[in-house]
Amino acid sequence: MGHKYVYQFSEGNGSMRELLGGKGANLAEMTSLGMPVPQGFTVTTEACTRYYEDGRAIAPEIQEEIFTYMGKLEEIAGKKFGDAGNPLLVSVRSGARASMPGMMDTILNLGLNDTVVEGLAKFTNNPRFAYDSYRRFIQMFSDVVMELSKKRFEEIIDDLKEKKGVKQDVELDTDDMKELVRRFKEFYKAEKGVDFPQEPKVQLMEAVQAVFRSWDNPRADVYRRMNEIPYDWGTAVNVQSMVFGNSGDNSGTGVAFTRNPATGEKALFGEYLINAQGEDVVAGVRTPSPISKLHEEMPEVYDQFASIANKLEQHYKDMQDMEFTIENGKLYMLQTRNGKRTAAAALKVAVDLVDEGMIDEKEAVLRVEPKQLDALLHPQFDPAALKKAAVIGKGLAASPGAACGRVVFTAEDAKAWHQRGEDVLLVRLETSPEDIEGMQVAQGILTVRGGMTSHAAVVARGMGTCCVSGCGEISVDYANKCFTLDGKTYYEGDWISIDGSTGNIYGEAVATVPADPSSGPFGRFMAWADQYRQLKVYTNADNPRDAKQAFDFGAQGIGLCRTEHMFFEGERIKAIREMIVADNVDDRKKALAKIMPYQQGDFEGIYEAMEGQPVVIRFLDPPLHEFLPTKEEDIQEIAKEMGITADKLHTVIESLHEFNPMMGHRGCRLAVSFPEIAEMQTAAVINAALAVQKKHPDWTMVPEIMIPLVGEVKEFKFVKDVVVATADRLIAESGVDMKYEVGTMIEIPRAALTADEIAKEAQFFSFGTNDLTQMTFGFSRDDAGKFLSYYYDTKIYESDPFAHLDANGVGRLVEMAAKLGRTTRPDIHLGICGEHGGDPTSVEFCHKVGLNYVSCSPFRVPIARLAAAQAAIKHPR
Amino acid sequence: MGHKYVYQFSEGNGSMRELLGGKGANLAEMTSLGMPVPQGFTVTTEACTRYYEDGRAIAPEIQEEIFTYMGKLEEIAGKKFGDAGNPLLVSVRSGARASMPGMMDTILNLGLNDTVVEGLAKFTNNPRFAYDSYRRFIQMFSDVVMELSKKRFEEIIDDLKEKKGVKQDVELDTDDMKELVRRFKEFYKAEKGVDFPQEPKVQLMEAVQAVFRSWDNPRADVYRRMNEIPYDWGTAVNVQSMVFGNSGDNSGTGVAFTRNPATGEKALFGEYLINAQGEDVVAGVRTPSPISKLHEEMPEVYDQFASIANKLEQHYKDMQDMEFTIENGKLYMLQTRNGKRTAAAALKVAVDLVDEGMIDEKEAVLRVEPKQLDALLHPQFDPAALKKAAVIGKGLAASPGAACGRVVFTAEDAKAWHQRGEDVLLVRLETSPEDIEGMQVAQGILTVRGGMTSHAAVVARGMGTCCVSGCGEISVDYANKCFTLDGKTYYEGDWISIDGSTGNIYGEAVATVPADPSSGPFGRFMAWADQYRQLKVYTNADNPRDAKQAFDFGAQGIGLCRTEHMFFEGERIKAIREMIVADNVDDRKKALAKIMPYQQGDFEGIYEAMEGQPVVIRFLDPPLHEFLPTKEEDIQEIAKEMGITADKLHTVIESLHEFNPMMGHRGCRLAVSFPEIAEMQTAAVINAALAVQKKHPDWTMVPEIMIPLVGEVKEFKFVKDVVVATADRLIAESGVDMKYEVGTMIEIPRAALTADEIAKEAQFFSFGTNDLTQMTFGFSRDDAGKFLSYYYDTKIYESDPFAHLDANGVGRLVEMAAKLGRTTRPDIHLGICGEHGGDPTSVEFCHKVGLNYVSCSPFRVPIARLAAAQAAIKHPR
Repeated sequence: MGHKYVYQFSEGNGSMRELLGGKGANLAEMTSLGMPVPQGFTVTTEACTRYYEDGRAIAPEIQEEIFTYMGKLEEIAGKKFGDAGNPLLVSVRSGARASMPGMMDTILNLGLNDTVVEGLAKFTNNPRFAYDSYRRFIQMFSDVVMELSKKRFEEIIDDLKEKKGVKQDVELDTDDMKELVRRFKEFYKAEKGVDFPQEPKVQLMEAVQAVFRSWDNPRADVYRRMNEIPYDWGTAVNVQSMVFGNSGDNSGTGVAFTRNPATGEKALFGEYLINAQGEDVVAGVRTPSPISKLHEEMPEVYDQFASIANKLEQHYKDMQDMEFTIENGKLYMLQTRNGKRTAAAALKVAVDLVDEGMIDEKEAVLRVEPKQLDALLHPQFDPAALKKAAVIGKGLAASPGAACGRVVFTAEDAKAWHQRGEDVLLVRLETSPEDIEGMQVAQGILTVRGGMTSHAAVVARGMGTCCVSGCGEISVDYANKCFTLDGKTYYEGDWISIDGSTGNIYGEAVATVPADPSSGPFGRFMAWADQYRQLKVYTNADNPRDAKQAFDFGAQGIGLCRTEHMFFEGERIKAIREMIVADNVDDRKKALAKIMPYQQGDFEGIYEAMEGQPVVIRFLDPPLHEFLPTKEEDIQEIAKEMGITADKLHTVIESLHEFNPMMGHRGCRLAVSFPEIAEMQTAAVINAALAVQKKHPDWTMVPEIMIPLVGEVKEFKFVKDVVVATADRLIAESGVDMKYEVGTMIEIPRAALTADEIAKEAQFFSFGTNDLTQMTFGFSRDDAGKFLSYYYDTKIYESDPFAHLDANGVGRLVEMAAKLGRTTRPDIHLGICGEHGGDPTSVEFCHKVGLNYVSCSPFRVPIARLAAAQAAIKHPR
Repeated sequence: MGHKYVYQFSEGNGSMRELLGGKGANLAEMTSLGMPVPQGFTVTTEACTRYYEDGRAIAPEIQEEIFTYMGKLEEIAGKKFGDAGNPLLVSVRSGARASMPGMMDTILNLGLNDTVVEGLAKFTNNPRFAYDSYRRFIQMFSDVVMELSKKRFEEIIDDLKEKKGVKQDVELDTDDMKELVRRFKEFYKAEKGVDFPQEPKVQLMEAVQAVFRSWDNPRADVYRRMNEIPYDWGTAVNVQSMVFGNSGDNSGTGVAFTRNPATGEKALFGEYLINAQGEDVVAGVRTPSPISKLHEEMPEVYDQFASIANKLEQHYKDMQDMEFTIENGKLYMLQTRNGKRTAAAALKVAVDLVDEGMIDEKEAVLRVEPKQLDALLHPQFDPAALKKAAVIGKGLAASPGAACGRVVFTAEDAKAWHQRGEDVLLVRLETSPEDIEGMQVAQGILTVRGGMTSHAAVVARGMGTCCVSGCGEISVDYANKCFTLDGKTYYEGDWISIDGSTGNIYGEAVATVPADPSSGPFGRFMAWADQYRQLKVYTNADNPRDAKQAFDFGAQGIGLCRTEHMFFEGERIKAIREMIVADNVDDRKKALAKIMPYQQGDFEGIYEAMEGQPVVIRFLDPPLHEFLPTKEEDIQEIAKEMGITADKLHTVIESLHEFNPMMGHRGCRLAVSFPEIAEMQTAAVINAALAVQKKHPDWTMVPEIMIPLVGEVKEFKFVKDVVVATADRLIAESGVDMKYEVGTMIEIPRAALTADEIAKEAQFFSFGTNDLTQMTFGFSRDDAGKFLSYYYDTKIYESDPFAHLDANGVGRLVEMAAKLGRTTRPDIHLGICGEHGGDPTSVEFCHKVGLNYVSCSPFRVPIARLAAAQAAIKHPR
């Protein structure tokens, strides 16, 4: 006997998800629990993989095995597939390891044809039911298997209803149903050129193939990418004997949760329809009744269902989402699974289950998806308002939350409108550091260009502001203060709304509800998580406000304080430009001296906000041309302001031009060229720490200075020597006994490859996985958007390596660097400060390779805390 | 007793170069051979390292040790340092492990002061000699130790000669010498504010320090970088008792080689001066006599010297370069070393030594610097003409050889002038593929921007054309067809000359002599090299002409045939632009179909030129925007030509804009997006190979297709599938039984890290170390020039990682990938096709990590052959 590709429900159990898919495993489990499950069999996920390996074909031996199991099902059911006398009908449903919207819909009533329908009509003595079932089957099969849109069939129904002058499907009689069947088949033939398949075995095999095929459809791709489901899992197919909720008024179908999926409240929650089949409940043709009503209509069935629901929840120790059908007063369970729920519900259910003694705290910590916490921390759209709003476009979900405001196009306008008390939504081609103040006052930010790690995205996440980036379909007209999207033009002052969790854009005001994490069991739950966590969680913050926010969210330090963002405000940018234009050390030092007090002040504010926790300050990183104007009018104006000729400024700008700025004169390369910058920044850090230390004698200030873009130990040593000379002098002069540390980013492959050398000098490593990903893959995050779509289409990449750390490539470098670093400095601190620091799967990776901390934007701190806890529970060190 | 930092000559020997430097080791060796060497001692290279470790100071214990050894020298010499009665004078000379021009000059007569000079006058009964020696000492010490320019002293001498009405130094008498000493000391005090140091011990320690210091001067830096001498070697210092060639007419000094260093001819070759000290021979104040004349003037001394010279050559088994002094008829040997020689001499000496039975062939192969072969392959300046020419600027030595021609500024003008029979030198800000035809006809190419791997440099090396790139001091005015350099303006048609081996630029015509490698023992020598070599040597060639050239130079295949250069000529570029502008597959395919025949024709030509040897063809690599115009006028014109609006073309250009093109939409990313490009290129390769196979049934054609910029196995597999589908179909249709291979570049760090995965699909790897270096270091070769100078100044990098493979970082990736690749495909071919393939140290690395071949530009093929042979001899696998 060959490999087994098919399992009867009675052969499986709940632990066989990988092979049978979630649905199949749960059907098997319910069967073994003795629950009323219509019997059937599951074609395994391995058969799906085999289907793709065989060039999208079901191998003959698998087909044969399926028919063998169909034979066994006929025996159990006491009916025969394709037999008009006592017909066995089946449903065919997909079922992957994880629940996957976007894959194939259910096909019901499979096995019907022109003769079987007649038999069914006789056998059930219910011809209307038989023809209703047949027309449903034709419709579903055509839609799902043959890609003939369901809508076209609906049009035929509507046409008939109009003719008959009726409104509801239920008002159509047997003859109408027969007429529909006739018209459907006719339409099918017209469209497909062949008759609707009459052979049940052909119908079955086509349906199984359609399920396998649907694993690869674009909607499934998108869902998998969003939810990190590997393509190679494949899907199983469940073939189950039909029970009929549409057999009459003693029948029905419904869905229900054991707890309220929106709030987590403990009570049966769901709805059902009498005399209906599955799709009717969701299709909205009739309004379903709340599940509580079943208690009145069919008390016995209700009690039986409630008891089963309770048993299932006890069994799975989690809130269940169930489908059931009542056929002539008898209850059948069609599916159960752990129910999807809102963030608030997830927390409440987890905490309640602990209080009810069903699970322990460790298990509770594993029950909430870290990413879900986002919804608790950011405003969300009011679900009622959202239902009515139309999506006019879609960008990248760059910073979560919902926002609604009036369109403005410049940072200045954002400030001006904000001062008038207006909610504004800043729309830009892309943002730059000069836009910071405008971004701070905006409800949300929408950009045309730029990816998940663009300036807009990074800064918005830092501020916890909603942002949708990279919506290339928008065309902006700055001159006339308007933008066009989806054929409509929006002017300054028009209301729009954006959803930074989905990337959706709405051309109107959609009401939002504010976030209030403190109201629920958030604090209690997070305290449990913190018990298990071994990674520390730091934050990336560049100003006291963000630092305070992160501190309140539980950040234990700052892992990345960028200093360049501070350079853009007011007088500072002028001094920076003076420094850039200077052609000798003295003039540069003079300009830097002007910046020093500002930097020191900023650092003091940040130290205060963090109340003595570690703060890692990174030295100036971007290429200097980022601080110079690009537009001719700005160049003219700024040259005038600086008292130099526009020609001179042009010359400087040209001399700083780079072909590949990402790989240009930036990071520590600036400090090697202009050590006076590092001197100034060292002085600002050390003086600030000394001042705060004096003010708070009970804190132990240990400022940490981080040198970016290091690729060679001598390069690090050169800058470190500059830092140490300045720091030691200032500390000696102060008379305060303060320690400090000098470490480096590991963001250049060569740094990872030579980490043993670098660790001889560097006291800590912080993996800058944004740049490390760029260099390791050899693609620029600003440009990758153009070709990555082809890579997703072709399954070469299944997720964005800037969102999820690429364990196979970038991860190898991280692991190698961590090991090498520890060989020469066993007590080296290791952290990560790239955007991956707030991504749960990346946090898990960081835990596994033994880093000491992750650092992420303030609003991702709770996510990282939870992800770190889950990683520690799953992979004890 | 502490560490030993000083060795008497009699304590050392010739094997102690690392510790004593080359000069010190050879002085010790000559001493042990019983040759007449003035005795002395060597302060070791470790003392130099210690000097830098101690913050540029000589530790007291080392000073003490030096004085102890001075005491021993006094005993041997029977004279006393600083004793007017019987003074010991010494010379102080630097001596690194390798001979290093650019370091400190010699100081002679050290130990003289106002009283000792009087004693010396009495003791030798030769006051003129004594004061001549003193004034020389003051002059040398001031110049070398105190940085008071020698010229200033020469002016004082000239002034005195004028006053006295004499022309020659020898015409100055004792009083004149005394007067010079007086004036020199006066000038010294005026400049330095202190008296000339009178204490001999102070003089000595200052001189030793000056030697150590000179290890770090800018000229030494440049020399080290050019010759790959590590900074950490340090230099030794030799202190030797003086013998005086200026003691009278029975004395003299000279230099001689055992063979002619220009031709290699076996005969004593050199010159000497009677009554002179060392520097007089080179200073040119009097014309020295040829060494043969010594045979007449002092036959006994000559015979003794000839015998010693012969003994030294037999002893060292190599041509010797010796310095000697005759003091009152007695011969002293001051130095011997293996003589520097021209490429032609190096080959002749190596071959002659084998014929003379002194060394074997293996040893001979080690005797020629691979890089030297360049001079045999390219035209060189006529040395006489070069002496008279003035350097007006310096760029990068981008492609070796010498060139002389009339300035033109565009490829079109180059062609026009060339057609009129003129030699032209093409001057460009930078070159681009459109300039190819102009570059082909130019004698040489000079660019303002771009490094060693810029377009100009790479293409010029491929063509064997002389190129100086990146001379930033030039300002070009295209509009007026002129450029300015060193304060002078050169117009179209003006003659200039460039030296691609040094980077020098001359503002005039300098005559060149053509290369003629076949005239000497080149062939015989290279055949020896090929016996030992284990690496195969391939070439990088994109056209039949280069391929033929490389084949003639011994290339065993083509390791990199770029296909994009073929896209620029005539009709092709039009079709390429059509393809780029096309917005659907069909239009793209139509445009590609136009290019196909050209590509196929090119490939056939290349296959023919290589006579059936392997040819690896790389698929399209650069981003598509490189094929589009950038200037507004060109955009207008080309849009018109293409029959589209300029707006449309602008839109396409804008849509292709990239922030970091190096990390953008290029390489295999193009084939993933537009598989039809890969289809067309596959068809061109396979059809060409089939055609050539049919024409030459005795050849076994195995076309190799190389996919660039791969970072992930699925990406490679995707493109490979496209290639295989097309190739298999064409081969099947042809009825010819032909194999082919599909492999990949390893040029993205991630490819190296996941090489085991990639090797499951790829049949060969070719390390693209240009891009791999960029990504591993995280710097763009186009931009690195701006900051690398700071890195050289600070010794962070000692050589250009684009010229010499960085073994520590990039090399680790190469080694890792080679190992990983072989784990999953043990018979994988491994090669390198970056610019490093022609660099001797990089070739050695490739041999050590076990690659199968290196591939380099045609004119570097002989260099790579020799370097590979030397690597195999030094590191047997």
